[in-house]
Amino acid sequence: MAGSSLGKLFKITTWGESHGSGVGVVVEGCPAGLPLKESDIQKDLDRRRTGQSKVTTTRKEGDHIRIASGIFKGKTTGTPISMWVDNKDADASKYESIKHLYRPGHADYSYDMKYGFRDYRGGGRASARETVGRVAAGAIAKKLLARDKIVITGFTRQIGNHAAATVNFKEIEKNIVRCPDPQAAKKMVTAIMQARKNGDSLGGVVEVVAKGVPAGLGEPVFDKLDADLAKAVMSIPAVKGVEIGAGFQTATMTGSESNDIIVMKNKKVTTRTNHAGGILGGISNGMDIVVRLVVKPTSSINKAQETVTQKGEKSKIRVEGRHDPCVAPRAVPIAEAMVALILIDHLLRNKTSRLT
Amino acid sequence: MAGSSLGKLFKITTWGESHGSGVGVVVEGCPAGLPLKESDIQKDLDRRRTGQSKVTTTRKEGDHIRIASGIFKGKTTGTPISMWVDNKDADASKYESIKHLYRPGHADYSYDMKYGFRDYRGGGRASARETVGRVAAGAIAKKLLARDKIVITGFTRQIGNHAAATVNFKEIEKNIVRCPDPQAAKKMVTAIMQARKNGDSLGGVVEVVAKGVPAGLGEPVFDKLDADLAKAVMSIPAVKGVEIGAGFQTATMTGSESNDIIVMKNKKVTTRTNHAGGILGGISNGMDIVVRLVVKPTSSINKAQETVTQKGEKSKIRVEGRHDPCVAPRAVPIAEAMVALILIDHLLRNKTSRLT
Amino acid sequence: MAGSSLGKLFKITTWGESHGSGVGVVVEGCPAGLPLKESDIQKDLDRRRTGQSKVTTTRKEGDHIRIASGIFKGKTTGTPISMWVDNKDADASKYESIKHLYRPGHADYSYDMKYGFRDYRGGGRASARETVGRVAAGAIAKKLLARDKIVITGFTRQIGNHAAATVNFKEIEKNIVRCPDPQAAKKMVTAIMQARKNGDSLGGVVEVVAKGVPAGLGEPVFDKLDADLAKAVMSIPAVKGVEIGAGFQTATMTGSESNDIIVMKNKKVTTRTNHAGGILGGISNGMDIVVRLVVKPTSSINKAQETVTQKGEKSKIRVEGRHDPCVAPRAVPIAEAMVALILIDHLLRNKTSRLT
Amino acid sequence: MAGSSLGKLFKITTWGESHGSGVGVVVEGCPAGLPLKESDIQKDLDRRRTGQSKVTTTRKEGDHIRIASGIFKGKTTGTPISMWVDNKDADASKYESIKHLYRPGHADYSYDMKYGFRDYRGGGRASARETVGRVAAGAIAKKLLARDKIVITGFTRQIGNHAAATVNFKEIEKNIVRCPDPQAAKKMVTAIMQARKNGDSLGGVVEVVAKGVPAGLGEPVFDKLDADLAKAVMSIPAVKGVEIGAGFQTATMTGSESNDIIVMKNKKVTTRTNHAGGILGGISNGMDIVVRLVVKPTSSINKAQETVTQKGEKSKIRVEGRHDPCVAPRAVPIAEAMVALILIDHLLRNKTSRLT
Repeated sequence: MAGSSLGKLFKITTWGESHGSGVGVVVEGCPAGLPLKESDIQKDLDRRRTGQSKVTTTRKEGDHIRIASGIFKGKTTGTPISMWVDNKDADASKYESIKHLYRPGHADYSYDMKYGFRDYRGGGRASARETVGRVAAGAIAKKLLARDKIVITGFTRQIGNHAAATVNFKEIEKNIVRCPDPQAAKKMVTAIMQARKNGDSLGGVVEVVAKGVPAGLGEPVFDKLDADLAKAVMSIPAVKGVEIGAGFQTATMTGSESNDIIVMKNKKVTTRTNHAGGILGGISNGMDIVVRLVVKPTSSINKAQETVTQKGEKSKIRVEGRHDPCVAPRAVPIAEAMVALILIDHLLRNKTSRLT
Repeated sequence: MAGSSLGKLFKITTWGESHGSGVGVVVEGCPAGLPLKESDIQKDLDRRRTGQSKVTTTRKEGDHIRIASGIFKGKTTGTPISMWVDNKDADASKYESIKHLYRPGHADYSYDMKYGFRDYRGGGRASARETVGRVAAGAIAKKLLARDKIVITGFTRQIGNHAAATVNFKEIEKNIVRCPDPQAAKKMVTAIMQARKNGDSLGGVVEVVAKGVPAGLGEPVFDKLDADLAKAVMSIPAVKGVEIGAGFQTATMTGSESNDIIVMKNKKVTTRTNHAGGILGGISNGMDIVVRLVVKPTSSINKAQETVTQKGEKSKIRVEGRHDPCVAPRAVPIAEAMVALILIDHLLRNKTSRLT
Repeated sequence: MAGSSLGKLFKITTWGESHGSGVGVVVEGCPAGLPLKESDIQKDLDRRRTGQSKVTTTRKEGDHIRIASGIFKGKTTGTPISMWVDNKDADASKYESIKHLYRPGHADYSYDMKYGFRDYRGGGRASARETVGRVAAGAIAKKLLARDKIVITGFTRQIGNHAAATVNFKEIEKNIVRCPDPQAAKKMVTAIMQARKNGDSLGGVVEVVAKGVPAGLGEPVFDKLDADLAKAVMSIPAVKGVEIGAGFQTATMTGSESNDIIVMKNKKVTTRTNHAGGILGGISNGMDIVVRLVVKPTSSINKAQETVTQKGEKSKIRVEGRHDPCVAPRAVPIAEAMVALILIDHLLRNKTSRLT
Repeated sequence: MAGSSLGKLFKITTWGESHGSGVGVVVEGCPAGLPLKESDIQKDLDRRRTGQSKVTTTRKEGDHIRIASGIFKGKTTGTPISMWVDNKDADASKYESIKHLYRPGHADYSYDMKYGFRDYRGGGRASARETVGRVAAGAIAKKLLARDKIVITGFTRQIGNHAAATVNFKEIEKNIVRCPDPQAAKKMVTAIMQARKNGDSLGGVVEVVAKGVPAGLGEPVFDKLDADLAKAVMSIPAVKGVEIGAGFQTATMTGSESNDIIVMKNKKVTTRTNHAGGILGGISNGMDIVVRLVVKPTSSINKAQETVTQKGEKSKIRVEGRHDPCVAPRAVPIAEAMVALILIDHLLRNKTSRLT
């Protein structure tokens, strides 16, 4: 129990369900003195929200953030920041007809087994709507990190069989799939529209790069930076894998290929390659932090699939509703938020690593 | 700071360095009444120890476990179990000559940046020797899980370009690379011996399967079962990626392919495939839990590589010492331990999920 | 940082300031299946609220609770329960004139030193208004405890020099000071009215008794039941001391007096006296849990007192506003809530103490 | 479960039983770079150990500390420090005859109820012998605090009916009861010797004063400095009450008496009195931190007392063994350690309270 909190010094606790009255977050441990207003947070929520383009669900959530505590005269006071968004355009009626069915790929059965029953409206707590709180908290984390010149950028690396061949950060927000390669972006959009037409969905890979992270962050041996990033990112709905730097590619490398050669650059210790993804021994080494995650294809598809009822009777289900045919584009700001939350927590934790 | 503990109800705290006086662990939260003796723990340590075969380092550590508390008349008392192993055959002299050099692929530089200096003997705390405590604690976790018919099996899925084509659990411990496919095992051994001869090393993929895990384990939304598994496994030295079930393959699947069709089997809700790896919405669904992790090639290689000194002067380094040319075979019991530790913690946590 | 959460399995996180938009709490770890509605919570909030009698402040807060998550069809779902109360009748204008002054007995200076500045309106986060969230969460805890026949009763033991000579639980809520001795209650009311007339305030002692607590709760050696109770109760604003059972009286007892003789009663192991207050070795022994706490006299008094400004200039201050002349009566439901929160957390934690 | 850890950034985990192989502690979060050797720790252990004078038990434990990790070339490395002491002169034979009896005032029954059975040798984990680990860790905490000119001094304030009338820190270690008033000390010694002769025991009050604590430590609203101190101190065996500053005396004060008048002294904000004990709103205000705790009379007395057997049969017990007739003198270094552990944790936590 009690698994809705993350972080040790910069800590968040999220609450809310898909079709309840709203979704929110309480942020503890934000240092006092940070200028903060609702618009700082709104911009990332707008990147996360539904209905932002033709590749996302058409549910219109609005998602106007309200900050209810922790701010005085425009600055954080060091006390908990409570924020939430009301749930609007929530239509639970369509879930009535499928409430006794276990949707394939969804958490319906596992929730029933855990809690004895479930809030079946739109996935309840298992809905990606829960991530509103993460993104809101992440926006604060990003603002704190920016003071130390740490910048976090997420993008879609791959959708289905289409992968970005080039990475140009300036291109990312210019296309609706958030791909840094404009050519690949077009193919991704086409593939998504085709999948939707087929009543099907696609998976993808999201990548997050954190630039400017100082060497020294991460707390061996369990709260290593990569370990905490893996947990944070794996906790995002639909994520089935995480890798750091060269990740699974290192399985087929030799040590002489995979080791990053150490060289001086601008009087700083740096590495010629970055297979390590900026983390060695669980501690940042000053290179870019590179985290990659895979999101499975959206489970809600408009195709009949076999399943069973709560009573164990054979049945078929076709999930109508309004769903993203591929969650990767909207997962980008969520993944950024999770990386930001871990980095700020470790930046704060690292302030006591040695005597000064 | 304070990052050497893992778990909430079943909690472990490890201590010790590669060339200090020993390595150990304190286990909190083991329920009272479990029969436990040192030999229960020794068998997994023997699978982890060095010098067990020609594919591992020749350092002879012995690793005889000592239980110093928490047991009375052969049973756990519910109080902390403190265990450790003395460090033997530790030869720190060879590290004197390279103490000012940053070894590529190692945590030397990141430790220096974090703490201001480092115990340079054999990697100090960053050494995989620290995992002795994890394996010892994991053996207790496995014994507890066995009471609920939960069995954890790890094996080497891939080394370099050689992957297991078949998975026969009975074959795993019959070969020195712990591969469930005897044909692939032979190729793996040959590849490792060749890499050693070249003064180089290989990466690999380890897979852990947990059978018998009841549906319902995992605590949304941050302490999801897959999130905690990802953290635990990523915290193992050399691991650069983790995936659950079909993992990164889901990027190229459609929803209709990736969703596991739900069917009844022996009057139990089950799925026809297991792309989910036994976890949906962060909660186990009763299918096998499948965790896969990649270990990078051993960083210590007997080839000259460019690097810099602590003062930033260009240099070259060739790490002689005694090192595993591929860590995958010895990572198998470590990965099993990490999975066991997370599962027992969640099994205990789940006892309060609903009113009874 | 991050100090607004309490509990391990049943965990609460409070937020909000005296003169912000509201005060609230997120409750994690409430088992699924508990019938819960807003009126279950409102009744304890009504015992805590201002303006309930002539011995309390006249500020009218209303304090209507709103539950925003974690409930489905009238039952808890096992997911976080977010609740809050809007701040009404908050008049911050009177604080403008004293914002540069440090009020004696208040946290003004310590907050300034910690955070660099403070929300000076009504004490901000240091205000007892924050305890709304505790009482709301405590009401859920009490409802859970009631299922196990655990009943928590708080009362005013002493105000100034007037102490209850008898303890009759039925009398407690019949008088406005919540004293179980009607004779003493009258004297307490008179004393409070006199103190208010003098522009002064009084201290007091509150006692909480938990009946029906099973033997076995408490987690040595740091999370002992008495240790966690002490922390919880000491965290209430104005509390300066806590004792269990005979408490400070044991200083002048001998062992043969203080030891509670063990006897059988109704086939149950019990003790003839209860100097231990129901806790031995940090674990409940089945007797009544008895916790006593002292609340200092309200710091805000309508008498001129010396102080300094933020710049260190000598000054005088007279706190006008609307304040309780003695906080003991309103501290009763708050103390009950804190005891309930600790007991439910330990009841849940104890479910894994031994193999079954 | 899992209750043997304390602290968030500076965290300790203790292990060991009275008659097991030893007692120890793992300290996490000690910043790197602190010079530390075993003798730094030994001196406080010598103040805690048995057999140090005629007022303590005659059991001779020796208690030579061994540091097994976390130190390199005489300095802390930032990694866990594991330390322990072997159990010597442990004679468990005398417990065989009373293993089926519940000793009044002891945790025998509550342990049996919690865990199903207990290590009955000398109280097992419930023994005050467990505090060796606390004192060892506290010695490190004190050494860190000393760098910030924070000095912690404990003493016996009262034994039975004899209280110190004056407080002269220089007198404390000059007498065997650690009383700062030499006249009272003599009476205390006489009273203890008389109690031992009677086969009885005495209670007492211990006080700890921390000088030099900067304003700003403590994390509202649950991890307030006083709340964490209360928990830490209440977790010491035999403690039944805790107070801060004027403590329970504030019950009979008026606000105008209890409020500490704020004045400038040496250009610093300070208070004329210190009824607050250095803490307001849960945050230190720069004045001396004053914590007082009551220890009940030793439960093991050499007088026949009624009790029952595990089977519920009436019986009598007389605890022979070697016991302290009053634990206050030996509780002094333990209480100091607990205060030091909380202060260092909060000193580290406070480094992130505001932007710099």
